[in-house]
Amino acid sequence: MSAGYGGVVADLIAELGRLPGVGPKSAQRIAFYILNSDPADVSRLANALLEVKAKVRFCEICGNVAEGERCRICEDPRRNETQLCVVEEPKDVVAIERTREFRGRYHVLGGAINPIDGIGPDDLRIRELMSRLASGVVTEVILATDPNVEGEATAAYLSRLLTSMDVAVTRLASGLPVGGDLEYADEVTLGRAFEGRVRLNA
Amino acid sequence: MSAGYGGVVADLIAELGRLPGVGPKSAQRIAFYILNSDPADVSRLANALLEVKAKVRFCEICGNVAEGERCRICEDPRRNETQLCVVEEPKDVVAIERTREFRGRYHVLGGAINPIDGIGPDDLRIRELMSRLASGVVTEVILATDPNVEGEATAAYLSRLLTSMDVAVTRLASGLPVGGDLEYADEVTLGRAFEGRVRLNA
Repeated sequence: MSAGYGGVVADLIAELGRLPGVGPKSAQRIAFYILNSDPADVSRLANALLEVKAKVRFCEICGNVAEGERCRICEDPRRNETQLCVVEEPKDVVAIERTREFRGRYHVLGGAINPIDGIGPDDLRIRELMSRLASGVVTEVILATDPNVEGEATAAYLSRLLTSMDVAVTRLASGLPVGGDLEYADEVTLGRAFEGRVRLNA
Repeated sequence: MSAGYGGVVADLIAELGRLPGVGPKSAQRIAFYILNSDPADVSRLANALLEVKAKVRFCEICGNVAEGERCRICEDPRRNETQLCVVEEPKDVVAIERTREFRGRYHVLGGAINPIDGIGPDDLRIRELMSRLASGVVTEVILATDPNVEGEATAAYLSRLLTSMDVAVTRLASGLPVGGDLEYADEVTLGRAFEGRVRLNA
């Protein structure tokens, strides 16, 4: 796709094409957008890329993204230390924070168990989770891995691992998405919604 | 969407989200990809962005992208000077070059006439086209603007403008795409294919 362009344009198209979700056509489109945009905007983008690599680390406690050694949530003394929400990725932390429902702490596993991709329990931050729990401060572990095969397998693995410990282990509810349409729900989701039905009268 | 991330991650998501075809979700996905990628890869991308802005200009003759004052096609003495192919954008040059059908020169207009976006003939490189034609070397002008409303309007405008000049003015053929399916062709394309039908026997 980059054939026919001069050297630096071809280089840019090739580099952009390596990004996830950016195919050859989009890479070309973005490259021409860059060519026509203000040099200041382009250097802001280039800087943002370099800054992120230079400054962002992963929190030494929870594994979330952090600009120092610890993330903003781990450094916040107002967060409830007794509740620990286990998620797969830093973006899951952001999604849960957006709900404003949860005021506890997080633990980011860095993925989910996935034998096809060769990701086993030792590749996730499970050892770090166990040592956080060893202090005895946490009373509830909320397993908030994705509701798909890998996330369910990871939650099942963790819940077995935690049976011996004196903590409540919970899992996020499965059911119909709010604002969704019952008719279009897949049968597994609808089945889970039945299983987890809630009584409304006394 | 970038709410909840630390400063530099939020900055990167915001900058990526300004690119064409990159929505908030993709910007987040790309940002996390960047976070997990090799620093050398990221600086290659950042450099490619800056290099393009530093080095790439538009050819002073044809308006195509160029690393010097003139593009590779205008500098190539083997290209036929008598045929001039008029296109909207530099990416159209690349598309035509890929066919290897055309060995003439190009003229890039920098867009098409589009009253809704406020783009009139004066916003395109039409004056430059007329002065190239004034030298009398060109014998055929091939109007290769897009086969959509704006491209057709631009081709119609140019063909009127060129009636007084001693050049053949041609337009790329409209018809069924090769490898396509007649059943799925829209009625305008199919109508054009009928109009432009070619006799096969003597």
